[in-house]
Amino acid sequence: MALAAPQAAQTAGIQAAPAAAAGQASIPAKARDTAREEANRQLVLDFYERFFNRHETAAAAAVVAEDYIQHNPAVPDGKAPFVGFFTGYFQDNPQSRARIVRSAADGDLVYLHVHSSNGAADRGQAVIDIFRVQDGMIVEHWDVIQDVPAEAANANTMF
Amino acid sequence: MALAAPQAAQTAGIQAAPAAAAGQASIPAKARDTAREEANRQLVLDFYERFFNRHETAAAAAVVAEDYIQHNPAVPDGKAPFVGFFTGYFQDNPQSRARIVRSAADGDLVYLHVHSSNGAADRGQAVIDIFRVQDGMIVEHWDVIQDVPAEAANANTMF
Repeated sequence: MALAAPQAAQTAGIQAAPAAAAGQASIPAKARDTAREEANRQLVLDFYERFFNRHETAAAAAVVAEDYIQHNPAVPDGKAPFVGFFTGYFQDNPQSRARIVRSAADGDLVYLHVHSSNGAADRGQAVIDIFRVQDGMIVEHWDVIQDVPAEAANANTMF
Repeated sequence: MALAAPQAAQTAGIQAAPAAAAGQASIPAKARDTAREEANRQLVLDFYERFFNRHETAAAAAVVAEDYIQHNPAVPDGKAPFVGFFTGYFQDNPQSRARIVRSAADGDLVYLHVHSSNGAADRGQAVIDIFRVQDGMIVEHWDVIQDVPAEAANANTMF
């Protein structure tokens, strides 16, 4: 995947002006609808808690679109593969939990910074998930995942 | 690092109520100041472009606090170790670029979803950085980093 020349940073979910240097990235032309953003945040928090902590996968996924667009490279597109994967995973790993450390809501996207783990003996992984919400449904997902190392150059943890 | 029982999602940079189930996570009590959020976003975008794409490390870091709190486990606390690390890295990797795909601004935090790479032949890494801005200075940083794989179960890329 070739890396393009430095491009303008595009504000999530907001129609941005054509590309310019990121140093000149424009402030979003569209005013932010913070009430909508907070509703999106709450929807995603509720979904995440039910799905990844209570393991109510099928019920929690009522807010996931059938044609859910998946950017996690290990999982195919669609709601069914996502639910199927984690239903099996939680059967094999009933101690799996995902502690939401912080969240952001901006435009139609909700970001979650998460510490996922399979129990107290597992250092776990740092995860940032991004969900796109459209009309009260989760329609798209990106994530970045990194193992929590045994040692670190600072005492702050990854969270 | 033991994983606590499911906790309330805490809104970034906002004093949250004591823990409750994330499903009941409260809407932030403090109204969002979107003008401040957009100023924070612009400051971070400008910094990032200068630092990671133009490689003007020392000059760009004028907006980084001396006692910068570092959560990347490979880098010690402080502005000097951060600048020193990347000044050397960019000398060794002059093709290094960081394409900002999208951003979020929420409270005093700015999130950047980035595709970093050392040139066209490098698949690179997916990165989400989180910067905390206080009084026009970047004072704290978290990130999660994952190599872009050669193959994926969907055609959407990690971005």
